[in-house]
Amino acid sequence: MSNIPSEAPVTPVEAFDPPYYVAVFTAVRTQEQSGYSETNARMEDLVKNIPGYLGMDYAQTPGGLAITVGYFRDADALTEWRSDAEHRAAQKRGRAEWYESYTLHVAKVERSHGFRRA
Amino acid sequence: MSNIPSEAPVTPVEAFDPPYYVAVFTAVRTQEQSGYSETNARMEDLVKNIPGYLGMDYAQTPGGLAITVGYFRDADALTEWRSDAEHRAAQKRGRAEWYESYTLHVAKVERSHGFRRA
Repeated sequence: MSNIPSEAPVTPVEAFDPPYYVAVFTAVRTQEQSGYSETNARMEDLVKNIPGYLGMDYAQTPGGLAITVGYFRDADALTEWRSDAEHRAAQKRGRAEWYESYTLHVAKVERSHGFRRA
Repeated sequence: MSNIPSEAPVTPVEAFDPPYYVAVFTAVRTQEQSGYSETNARMEDLVKNIPGYLGMDYAQTPGGLAITVGYFRDADALTEWRSDAEHRAAQKRGRAEWYESYTLHVAKVERSHGFRRA
């Protein structure tokens, strides 16, 4: 984030050629958010090192849901990210402090397309 | 929306037993949004009539990405929703007026889980 000028246009991660994987993480956060943004930034750095990581989109409605969608080339990439020790520690802290509730859906993409205004 | 009191807690759609389908729609909207919210409300009503529709989560960062995740029991449900004439007309208008860019990823869920604070 810190290297991207704030004027940079926001665009979704592209629609890749299937098959690839999506991990959809949808959360409601608690009032207790100390340490969250530092950990989140660290996770963003770490996931970029996973071979097969393709990108991530994020949206949060103020006071509402936060949806993170991670894109991965194959199931092995997801397994590696899921096994990362720092990631596991962050998940544990998330359940203890930062999340009221969440769901995770891991899915294999069968079809995709993108649109961009000419 | 109109029947839900604003104090109702926001929670993600549940993590169902796989397999099921997710459709991840990630968009950047234009400045031109006349008619958008009415059409969006109409689409929310219509999709609920699709057999196999399971639910939908939505988040939007102000000035940033909007992510909609729809959950469907099977591919047939998605095909039916994709073929709906009003839905197709809305998509066409979206490309002409409301969206700067978007991606759609349709994927079969292989693994899911949910967490809720006790």
